[in-house]
Amino acid sequence: MSKYDAPLTDIRFVLYDVLDVETIYATLPGGENAPREIIDAVLDEAAKFTGQVLAPLNKSGDQEGCHWDNTVVTTPKGFKQAYAQWVEGGWPGINLPEQYGGQHLPESIGGAVKEMIESANLAWGTYTLLSHGAAAALIHHGEEWQREVFLKPITHGNWTGTMCLTEPHCGTDLGLLKTKAEAQADGSYSISGTKIFITAGEHDLADNIIHLVLARLPDAPAGTKGISLFIVPKFKVDQSGKVGERNAATCGSIEHKMGIKGSATCVMNFDGAQGWLIGPLNKGLNCMFTMMNAARVGVGVQGLGLIERAYQNSLAYARDRLQMRSLSGPKRPDKPADPIIVHPDIRRMLLKQKAFAEAGRALVYDAYIQVELADRSTDPATQKHAEELLSFLTPIVKALMTEMAIECTIDAQQIFGGHGYIQEWGMEQFVRDARITTIYEGTTQIQALDLLGRKIMALQGVGFRHFLDEVGTFCKAQAGNAIVAEFVGPLAKAAQEWAALTQEIAASAVKNPEEIGAAAVDYLYYSGYITLAYYWARIVVAAQNSKHGDDFKQAKLHTARFYYARILPRTLSHVAMIRAGSASLMDIPEEQFSVA
Amino acid sequence: MSKYDAPLTDIRFVLYDVLDVETIYATLPGGENAPREIIDAVLDEAAKFTGQVLAPLNKSGDQEGCHWDNTVVTTPKGFKQAYAQWVEGGWPGINLPEQYGGQHLPESIGGAVKEMIESANLAWGTYTLLSHGAAAALIHHGEEWQREVFLKPITHGNWTGTMCLTEPHCGTDLGLLKTKAEAQADGSYSISGTKIFITAGEHDLADNIIHLVLARLPDAPAGTKGISLFIVPKFKVDQSGKVGERNAATCGSIEHKMGIKGSATCVMNFDGAQGWLIGPLNKGLNCMFTMMNAARVGVGVQGLGLIERAYQNSLAYARDRLQMRSLSGPKRPDKPADPIIVHPDIRRMLLKQKAFAEAGRALVYDAYIQVELADRSTDPATQKHAEELLSFLTPIVKALMTEMAIECTIDAQQIFGGHGYIQEWGMEQFVRDARITTIYEGTTQIQALDLLGRKIMALQGVGFRHFLDEVGTFCKAQAGNAIVAEFVGPLAKAAQEWAALTQEIAASAVKNPEEIGAAAVDYLYYSGYITLAYYWARIVVAAQNSKHGDDFKQAKLHTARFYYARILPRTLSHVAMIRAGSASLMDIPEEQFSVA
Repeated sequence: MSKYDAPLTDIRFVLYDVLDVETIYATLPGGENAPREIIDAVLDEAAKFTGQVLAPLNKSGDQEGCHWDNTVVTTPKGFKQAYAQWVEGGWPGINLPEQYGGQHLPESIGGAVKEMIESANLAWGTYTLLSHGAAAALIHHGEEWQREVFLKPITHGNWTGTMCLTEPHCGTDLGLLKTKAEAQADGSYSISGTKIFITAGEHDLADNIIHLVLARLPDAPAGTKGISLFIVPKFKVDQSGKVGERNAATCGSIEHKMGIKGSATCVMNFDGAQGWLIGPLNKGLNCMFTMMNAARVGVGVQGLGLIERAYQNSLAYARDRLQMRSLSGPKRPDKPADPIIVHPDIRRMLLKQKAFAEAGRALVYDAYIQVELADRSTDPATQKHAEELLSFLTPIVKALMTEMAIECTIDAQQIFGGHGYIQEWGMEQFVRDARITTIYEGTTQIQALDLLGRKIMALQGVGFRHFLDEVGTFCKAQAGNAIVAEFVGPLAKAAQEWAALTQEIAASAVKNPEEIGAAAVDYLYYSGYITLAYYWARIVVAAQNSKHGDDFKQAKLHTARFYYARILPRTLSHVAMIRAGSASLMDIPEEQFSVA
Repeated sequence: MSKYDAPLTDIRFVLYDVLDVETIYATLPGGENAPREIIDAVLDEAAKFTGQVLAPLNKSGDQEGCHWDNTVVTTPKGFKQAYAQWVEGGWPGINLPEQYGGQHLPESIGGAVKEMIESANLAWGTYTLLSHGAAAALIHHGEEWQREVFLKPITHGNWTGTMCLTEPHCGTDLGLLKTKAEAQADGSYSISGTKIFITAGEHDLADNIIHLVLARLPDAPAGTKGISLFIVPKFKVDQSGKVGERNAATCGSIEHKMGIKGSATCVMNFDGAQGWLIGPLNKGLNCMFTMMNAARVGVGVQGLGLIERAYQNSLAYARDRLQMRSLSGPKRPDKPADPIIVHPDIRRMLLKQKAFAEAGRALVYDAYIQVELADRSTDPATQKHAEELLSFLTPIVKALMTEMAIECTIDAQQIFGGHGYIQEWGMEQFVRDARITTIYEGTTQIQALDLLGRKIMALQGVGFRHFLDEVGTFCKAQAGNAIVAEFVGPLAKAAQEWAALTQEIAASAVKNPEEIGAAAVDYLYYSGYITLAYYWARIVVAAQNSKHGDDFKQAKLHTARFYYARILPRTLSHVAMIRAGSASLMDIPEEQFSVA
């Protein structure tokens, strides 16, 4: 069975040394709730819970899957007990406001806990994932009674949340959605329609499930401007908080999927279900989008979690498995063969995972810092800056970390050779689980259009400029630091090229809007690789200034060198592909895709 | 359910127009067996069999899997009947010598049939895969009685074959193998040991199973120089061909795998089983290697087959699925949204699959032509040239086509969005099935070392020079051809760079043998992309000279342009990574891969 030990040393290094969260927390109201002793204790407890409770259920959950019987969904053995322990430990409210029963710890601490959950048991984690989104919607858009009634039990964890967007004929294109909402005399709405791919739409872990449902009033404008958001509980809840009878919101079936089999992916039927409007009428998409950044960063964390676990296991195997001799002569003459970690390409695959896990951790936690600054800072300028930077970083976090999770879990599996293909060893599950992460919460294609089309073009790249400024400031500050000089030069050059290339694309897009779509995915990868190069340079500096030993510092230095030598050059191809422009994709007429 | 229609137009185009097989067949003994009417009839029948019989069993076979009970393996419903039809149609002997009951059609025809099988049902295809290897071993190394006794029923198909190499502690490193062979008074050997990952090691499709087993005599030299090859039938067979009692060669269990679940992957226990030596004592690995090129090309065909089927299905979906409007304005204003094929990145993912399927087909069939020239040509110079070229092309065919199969099946799945992750649609199975192809028959890492370490360095790149000569001759011949000028220039430049880069690596490897291992995988991809660029240029010329219509010719031209603009630039990154050298992988001490 595959192992998992929370990488607490590196998690703490990223929080304290790379990102200096203590200084940031001190500026936030409630920052006094998070001194280092508390953070350390939370991380230790999370490591125990995820390692001892969740990780052992990962494979059995995959093999058993969820079961559906006449609208009732049963989760795999042990999931319910683990969830009860999760509630018992007070985890559901870790980042939620104290007035509703939460601990209001900073989002970046929640992000670190989340990383451990995703490493230990991604499928189980999906039951907690959307509660966060539902809570955010309630906090930002709910009326006071709605917060009182719905947010407290979600914070406590005996209720969970969902997001109900997708319908059979529309996933990405929500303007097409058909679910109806009709106003009722009591101020509620009657919701009718079918939603698909609803994660945790039905399960046996909690007493009630709060669906946030996008629907359309009969007289609403067409397209995305006529969509409203509704709270639709599994069991009806009135404005006083009294829980009533079963609502007409039922699970019609669950999907049989490639992976995350322990997660119930539901078809949800709303047959005149009672719902409550949340936020302004016809502004449902806006309300949903406020949950989107955090939810997308959350999927990026899933990618990070999978890379970390894949790395731990493939590293252990590479040290253990004896096969062939090193090309430069036997390294363990006492054994019948050398451990495969002596072979250069095994090292390449290991270092790739290590490089993406460690810089990815810095990127992802930094994004969570922007979430908390945007949410909690009392300084409007800081808040605005964080919002803009977050909106730029989000598609990179989401798409890059998930695409790299696919690549890295495949590499980890490859290191196991034939054993990697066998279920028993657990490596193939990581690939299957990883595969969903580039699809849900907006595909990589959607993230790429969000980055280039919206964040760069439509919003004039304000978040991008913040990031470039940050990189520029870092490079200047490190100008005299010999330890990082080998990275600062290439990083500054890459940032310069990045800015110029962005201008170039913008200019060509003015003439032809297809250039955006033609460049977007390559531009996202390109941007992502430079982004992580920045974090690698920061990691080297932070390690140098930390109290860690020489081995730790050297390991960071070597991994950064690997990244700059073996990963950053991927940008060369992406630049060429971006410059190839839209003609190479659009000139071929549709009928010529198949000529018999 | 996913569809499959054999791409007969393109298969014929590659055979007749791109590779001009008719001219080649005419030079071979028995070439008169394969006039165009026969080839066309064989291809038509194969299209029917694979489309109507095998394809419908693909998903059910995956869902049902194989079952093991007390050494007996039951294949999924319908597999046995399909195999009976396969035998009935005379397919097992399609390429085997007439004197043993075969039709002795050229290998490239067999390759085209094989492509259709792999597209239709890869798991089912594995039961036929290793018979070919066993037959090749018997033809090249068997004594006359062995050919008489074993080859005839294999040719007929009522017996199948296996290759038993891997043991629990050794896959790649066969020098470590422990299975014992002890000489018996009757001239047979007693074989004892355990083999794992034996494809089709036990099943219910055929009357007997002929295992080719690597084992070691008690007094044999250590390592790979002490390995011999033995024929070990499931039911004992004496030298007269009489089938006797059950041999002590039994299936201890089958593996539960990520994919190819309809294929029985067996643990085989040999407990003093009766075996017959084939080939010289202690030369077992050599005998095995004669099967290796064809078997590895065969796995490359699996990659091709998966890409083709993934393409057909994702193209159909992209034409059908309505979602969002084109960035340059609505293309189907009559519909609620445009079909997603209007979006540039959907086209990028489709064109990638199309480009790898169509040039991959030319590469793979060309490799089979080298197999048949090496095997059948009466001209020793032609034979030698083909052998050398094949030995160079084999690792490229095997590794590139399978790695691209993973990439392309993932892209095809991505085009389906959330539906791609659901088993019902069939796309996720292709990814899971594809995943084995970069592992078995030598991982991508092993193929890369074979290419750079063995074919380029140890054998002084003789096959590589043949290939470069061919590319050079092509470029010169097409110098005045305007239609292909846009490709010939970049191709000639790439070939030049390839030769120089190879020299560069060779020079650095003289100083440090680790450079080979550090460069190998990037070098393989690099070489593969240029190789396919050559076939794309040939395809454009062949289309131009063919009797196909303008749409066909234009489609080839556009796809070639896509390939040169969007795939060939991948070489840029690989060059930079190769030049990064071994230091970026080897400098980090083993203990620094994890520092707590």
